[in-house]
Amino acid sequence: MEVWFTEDQTKHLRIGCRVREVLFSGQSPFQKVAVLDTVEFGRMLTLDNVIQTNIKDEFVYHEMITHVGLNTHPDPKKVLVIGGGDGGAVREIVKHKGIEKVVHVEIDQMVIDVAKKFFPELSSGFNDPRVEIVVDDGIKHVKENKGVYDMIIVDSTDPVGPAVGLFSEEFYRSVFEALTGDGLFVAQTESPFFNSELITRVNTTISGIFPVTRLFWAVVPTYPGGYWTFTMGSKKHDPLAVDVDKDKIEALGTKWYSPEVHRTAFVLQPFVKELLPR
Amino acid sequence: MEVWFTEDQTKHLRIGCRVREVLFSGQSPFQKVAVLDTVEFGRMLTLDNVIQTNIKDEFVYHEMITHVGLNTHPDPKKVLVIGGGDGGAVREIVKHKGIEKVVHVEIDQMVIDVAKKFFPELSSGFNDPRVEIVVDDGIKHVKENKGVYDMIIVDSTDPVGPAVGLFSEEFYRSVFEALTGDGLFVAQTESPFFNSELITRVNTTISGIFPVTRLFWAVVPTYPGGYWTFTMGSKKHDPLAVDVDKDKIEALGTKWYSPEVHRTAFVLQPFVKELLPR
Repeated sequence: MEVWFTEDQTKHLRIGCRVREVLFSGQSPFQKVAVLDTVEFGRMLTLDNVIQTNIKDEFVYHEMITHVGLNTHPDPKKVLVIGGGDGGAVREIVKHKGIEKVVHVEIDQMVIDVAKKFFPELSSGFNDPRVEIVVDDGIKHVKENKGVYDMIIVDSTDPVGPAVGLFSEEFYRSVFEALTGDGLFVAQTESPFFNSELITRVNTTISGIFPVTRLFWAVVPTYPGGYWTFTMGSKKHDPLAVDVDKDKIEALGTKWYSPEVHRTAFVLQPFVKELLPR
Repeated sequence: MEVWFTEDQTKHLRIGCRVREVLFSGQSPFQKVAVLDTVEFGRMLTLDNVIQTNIKDEFVYHEMITHVGLNTHPDPKKVLVIGGGDGGAVREIVKHKGIEKVVHVEIDQMVIDVAKKFFPELSSGFNDPRVEIVVDDGIKHVKENKGVYDMIIVDSTDPVGPAVGLFSEEFYRSVFEALTGDGLFVAQTESPFFNSELITRVNTTISGIFPVTRLFWAVVPTYPGGYWTFTMGSKKHDPLAVDVDKDKIEALGTKWYSPEVHRTAFVLQPFVKELLPR
């Protein structure tokens, strides 16, 4: 018997992965949650039939959504992660010795439970004493916490369903308020090949709120087209002006991120540059 | 009715594209040739059911397989293209005013005919008076031409079927012989996520023949995993030591390639660096 998982990456583009076994399938109050053992990528988490992460390529996304920002801020102590219930972002954050507190706000308890059970490689950071897991709405959390965080990471699903609000101007304003005086945030912001209008809109909005707005990118093979962007909004520190600490970065033991990648992830191709506000 | 084209990118990974119309389907002496009008990527060329190129993302591959090498050599005059019958590489090469001659050796007449009829945007360079199209085996051609070319581009299909010989040590030795005293060559060399052993083997082999061997990369959304590599073997000029001419590059009107991309395409992530010989 052949079992395949198929995701509609766009209305007109699909990815298919051969499945050894369906390890978990459930319906939470927010979404369908599934864990598949795929041949090509190992264990894979899907939400509403969209690939979120997998054992083979998760390192790219989780290293880039965390370390670029953490190494742009000179001394991040308190970090908020919104979404990302698989734990991959938290695992990378707690590698930084200077971090005193990580608040992880995930709306869906089922995602956390599934991560603990099926993705120990990703959720290992949950056991770090500096980590506090809060099952709540991230939008509400940032509204209720002002001037608290040195860095906020928006590790959201695609801008449909529960995550729509995480791409809104109102949310970015709350994020600004929730940050300390020299805080910064990083959000995943989709593909320039398939979501170019979103990149333009988000970067225009963030530029209207934050003094420094920067787009950077990496390649996540299981996301549509591979080329994936992140947007940083920063109150003070500019990643292009920061001298990164080579030794500190190399000590992180990363597979995608490196001192050189930190710098060159901000080099955009002409067709991507054109998406940004002037 | 829904019509989908599906490619097995690996034994365990598939890509599917919604098809408006099958524009051409034929069997040449070498392979199955098809042209599909896809909704997401526009017209698409497939050979033996593997995506070769398409209107939406072809610029990435064709710009990177040509301009990086052409701007590493200080004065390329005579260039050989092996494969790439769609014409995309030739179109980029003839943008360089200093080029005196482009010999385009494609084994399959049907691919050339299909490119002329269905991909005028790609095959436009075929009309340039400096271009000579030779329908022949590229392996034979490099054996028969010694010390002739300033640059050779190996725009091959995947290393299965007719293209296997284009990834062999014997072929790379013939390429070395076919180049002038300071010539260089660039070949497409697949994905570090799915073909890591090939990248190691090819780079080890080329390092044994050429004084300078360099891996560089770009993102082609329709190739497995997106992250795609190219390998340069050079007799003298090192792309990392060359000061590129910013104005000359910007005049090319490229969408992926740029002066900054020329430099940063050689920045490899730790997991890719590990694939290379020490």
